[in-house]
Amino acid sequence: MQHTNDTIWQQLEGFEVGQSVAFTDVLQQLPWNADGLIAAIAQQHDTGDVLMLAWMNQPALLETLQTQHVCYWSRSRQQLWRKGETSGHWQRLVSAHLDCDGDAILLKIDQIGQAACHTGRRSCFYNQVQGERVVVTIAPITPQKTASI
Amino acid sequence: MQHTNDTIWQQLEGFEVGQSVAFTDVLQQLPWNADGLIAAIAQQHDTGDVLMLAWMNQPALLETLQTQHVCYWSRSRQQLWRKGETSGHWQRLVSAHLDCDGDAILLKIDQIGQAACHTGRRSCFYNQVQGERVVVTIAPITPQKTASI
Repeated sequence: MQHTNDTIWQQLEGFEVGQSVAFTDVLQQLPWNADGLIAAIAQQHDTGDVLMLAWMNQPALLETLQTQHVCYWSRSRQQLWRKGETSGHWQRLVSAHLDCDGDAILLKIDQIGQAACHTGRRSCFYNQVQGERVVVTIAPITPQKTASI
Repeated sequence: MQHTNDTIWQQLEGFEVGQSVAFTDVLQQLPWNADGLIAAIAQQHDTGDVLMLAWMNQPALLETLQTQHVCYWSRSRQQLWRKGETSGHWQRLVSAHLDCDGDAILLKIDQIGQAACHTGRRSCFYNQVQGERVVVTIAPITPQKTASI
């Protein structure tokens, strides 16, 4: 049952597959964190590989949805981070999926230029915990370190 | 080239596949955020489905690695959140992968009890942005809402 004072997240929770709300209404109720950001997970759309976790503010999210080129917010540089702008390792958006409370977004993308990570590796998640050790499990694709920004 | 004043992340970045450092040394340099947390992505290990994003503090991370049952930190309840403790929808850890700067961890897991999401859905990422609409794309597995905590 839908109550008029439900949040949009509660409304969506009760929806059947195919039911929808306006994106503008969702945008108004996105629970940005204290820094005005939501977490964004980039997943290669066909292999399922999780490539990186980064952050988006509202301009980054809107630009990503409009251009289909993924744009994050760089917390270290405090500016929009158009992934691949300088490195060529950009990300084409395939689809975008908000989670149940709207503070994270899953971006299914096509990683162009192969390396999502600034180290030149396909994925940022190359440090696997194996018992008492942390082991590097992915090699850089590019022979030299890539400034994958 | 490895410099003695490199952070452990810089050391790992320069490693070849198979090279490792002690987990205890990594733990000392994990860049917990202001709330003492890192972001944790849960991915079903065999299908590649991204199921949820949650948070871990140090006790949650250590408990997860020790028990192989995923434990998060609940920001809303401000307590350890042993996933599935009450719902039965727990997560068996298959492998854990820190990212290049250590502020996110990818957990490859086996989702027991099917629903990772508190709405009874397999994944929390059921709200797909489709143009001007946000559309529910995943139905609950369980007929009634599951308190998947």
